[in-house]
Amino acid sequence: MSTVDVVERLRASLGDRVDTTHESLQSARADKSGHAASGVPLAVVHAASVDDVQTTLRIANETATPVVTRGAGTGLAGGANTGAGEISLSMRRMDRILEVRPDDLLAVVEPGILNADLNAALAPHGVWWAPDPASRAISTVGGNIATGAGGLLCAKYGVVRDAVLALDVVLADGRLLHLGHRTVKGVTGLDLTSLFIGSEGILGVVVGATLKLRRLVPGELCTIAATFTDVRAAAAASAAVTAAGIQPAIMELMDAASLAAVHAHLGIDTPPAGAAQLTIQTDGPAAVAEADAIAEVLTVAGGTVAVTQDRAEGERLLMIRRSMHPAMEKLGTSLIEDVSVPRSALPAMFDEIARVEREHGVVIPTIAHAGDGNLHPNFLFDSAPDEHGIIDVPDEIWVAADDMFRAALRLGGTLTGEHGIGVLKRRWLADELGDDQWELQRQIARVFDPRGILNPGKVFAP
Amino acid sequence: MSTVDVVERLRASLGDRVDTTHESLQSARADKSGHAASGVPLAVVHAASVDDVQTTLRIANETATPVVTRGAGTGLAGGANTGAGEISLSMRRMDRILEVRPDDLLAVVEPGILNADLNAALAPHGVWWAPDPASRAISTVGGNIATGAGGLLCAKYGVVRDAVLALDVVLADGRLLHLGHRTVKGVTGLDLTSLFIGSEGILGVVVGATLKLRRLVPGELCTIAATFTDVRAAAAASAAVTAAGIQPAIMELMDAASLAAVHAHLGIDTPPAGAAQLTIQTDGPAAVAEADAIAEVLTVAGGTVAVTQDRAEGERLLMIRRSMHPAMEKLGTSLIEDVSVPRSALPAMFDEIARVEREHGVVIPTIAHAGDGNLHPNFLFDSAPDEHGIIDVPDEIWVAADDMFRAALRLGGTLTGEHGIGVLKRRWLADELGDDQWELQRQIARVFDPRGILNPGKVFAP
Repeated sequence: MSTVDVVERLRASLGDRVDTTHESLQSARADKSGHAASGVPLAVVHAASVDDVQTTLRIANETATPVVTRGAGTGLAGGANTGAGEISLSMRRMDRILEVRPDDLLAVVEPGILNADLNAALAPHGVWWAPDPASRAISTVGGNIATGAGGLLCAKYGVVRDAVLALDVVLADGRLLHLGHRTVKGVTGLDLTSLFIGSEGILGVVVGATLKLRRLVPGELCTIAATFTDVRAAAAASAAVTAAGIQPAIMELMDAASLAAVHAHLGIDTPPAGAAQLTIQTDGPAAVAEADAIAEVLTVAGGTVAVTQDRAEGERLLMIRRSMHPAMEKLGTSLIEDVSVPRSALPAMFDEIARVEREHGVVIPTIAHAGDGNLHPNFLFDSAPDEHGIIDVPDEIWVAADDMFRAALRLGGTLTGEHGIGVLKRRWLADELGDDQWELQRQIARVFDPRGILNPGKVFAP
Repeated sequence: MSTVDVVERLRASLGDRVDTTHESLQSARADKSGHAASGVPLAVVHAASVDDVQTTLRIANETATPVVTRGAGTGLAGGANTGAGEISLSMRRMDRILEVRPDDLLAVVEPGILNADLNAALAPHGVWWAPDPASRAISTVGGNIATGAGGLLCAKYGVVRDAVLALDVVLADGRLLHLGHRTVKGVTGLDLTSLFIGSEGILGVVVGATLKLRRLVPGELCTIAATFTDVRAAAAASAAVTAAGIQPAIMELMDAASLAAVHAHLGIDTPPAGAAQLTIQTDGPAAVAEADAIAEVLTVAGGTVAVTQDRAEGERLLMIRRSMHPAMEKLGTSLIEDVSVPRSALPAMFDEIARVEREHGVVIPTIAHAGDGNLHPNFLFDSAPDEHGIIDVPDEIWVAADDMFRAALRLGGTLTGEHGIGVLKRRWLADELGDDQWELQRQIARVFDPRGILNPGKVFAP
């Protein structure tokens, strides 16, 4: 069947939910990484129901047409990028909250709802969904599930894997399955819910999610800002906080280049040369005592420390951290990376990044979710995006990134803490998994998708 | 190859770690459920190293000989029971702690270590592994992982799935794989670590585990005992505690038959007829305030409430709950069940159990981890164990259990909260999963074990 016929079949079943406008097709090619797929997709299907998803997949499976599932397109690994000959299946319109049960601490939602919109709707019930990727205002719950997203609060409140009870999924051939359970405990059969979390669209399409909620945290919210003479001292101080047995809600680290860039972006005083910063929040019934204990650890570690219990002031301090991405954009184009290491290895990982900067002659402003050992090194380079906002990462940047990935693995770390493999890191996947596990994972994906139509070429290199 | 030759090959490679004594073979047939496999295993292999496990599986795979992995044999679903023509692979001797990292909140252990022994060794480091099945003094970490064990503390501190970072596993053909990562966050490839948790020996053999630890909880420990006139009132009160947004560490419920049996067993005063009890503990910095709030909810719900901050008195109150199994043994033989329902459905599930008692003429003393909606109904019957301690569950008990399973599923629950499917519940598995998912799960297992030698006949009915 020709690709024209595939679009005709989709349109015959789904009408104007099949979108072939130039603008929609172009925007489906890329995500927030700036990387884009080659060529232009056949169509964007705006699914409005489970039935729409099943119809799309049945047609795709029968015609062996690749399908790339997409939420809000905020990914940073190219996982949702859709190219020539492929269908972009957009879940964004399926954004309803189907059920909220504060007594059972669960909610049932469609995948297209934005994380922040969900939490705004949950707050009046006194509950929240803990995963908080930095993109939460613009990323969908379905996208959070597909990438196994993390965020700022993970060390204390967990990642997506810890916050999903059950999933409704459509398989490649259009069949609908209900995975998992609505209960706190449940060990009936293999845990396919967990397998789907972070599977980046290669196993099936999530059309519904039963989310595990938490009560809103009562008590004070304390914010601590601490400045250090260099990034290694800041990293060592954050490791000392963890080693002291204190669990902050948020512990963010900004290196000197990041801090200087954000200060310039926000028009606030230039920090001392080389200075790095930790921004820490404690919450819950012991927030004040924990903040005092953390302040002491940081002072002993050589930091200049300020503590506030004022929520507005705390939000202002965190805003400095949250301004990282716009500040980076002013410095030029960047490859945003995402390695994760054991918390004790954080100082050593910063040493490795400094070495990579020296040896490869690149600049790598780095922020870290220091509380959980997750670093976002931003590899800067001169290469303006094209008219579609699409960037081309130079080879020498990939060579430097390769050096950094291998350093993270040597330190007991992993290639990606929360962004996923997508297309951008698939060439390193076997280095971490080993060839045997790589092949086993590929075979498992084939069980779900025998014809290989779901997000082909993502995660596993072709 | 004859089965004699298989044992000879094992012995040639593994020497006296191959055990064919009558006593060892008999004890490998059964677990704590009392159910036993038909016939007698070929041999028990006492693995002392990863290499031993690989050797055993290579021989088994080449000769198509079934292998049943076994920890301490404390399972309650028959998952580790080994019968005619099968090798029992005991992991009990691989019980070393390889690494403890309080700064990274992780430990690396061999699977044969007892849960309680691990926690005793961790305590001086100020950390603990949270999963706490009631069997923790006698069950292994590997067994906890294989069943996805729960326990008393789950609603607040999570289940095994929440407490494992990485696994070393040996596949059916003897290859060793390293799954997962040592980091808080990590989304590199499919989450095979989660898939292994609760997989009951059908995917591979866990030979090492990197466990996610918690800091020991500081602060007071408050214990609340509340008596209610009937079990439904106690269940409604426990649901009211959860709905009020208070998170106890432990919330256990005993119905009238359980409470009376335990009082008789311990020789303490007989409780009022029909009386049911909640035993609740709060911990951490807000323990006292939470205990006061819970006491108020329970009083409003009609309970007679006592609160203590004395740890010894608290332990005495919990001992009543922990004496359930020996007390049951005095009442006769029982089938220990394990359904789980959403917390709000706990009163309705007790109504269903009362209905099953009436309609089937059976007695079902029931305890519940009320904080997470997990019930253990004990179906009593007259059938003495044989000389090997093995029981034969009468058909009419299975018919009553079937009725109860279906009621749990109707209430949004699941067949097993923490014990697993094993052999005892495999005939209901497709009722919960649906035929499509059942078949998909079976195909996934086949990817790991193409010849079907790992725990055949368990989980999936033949």
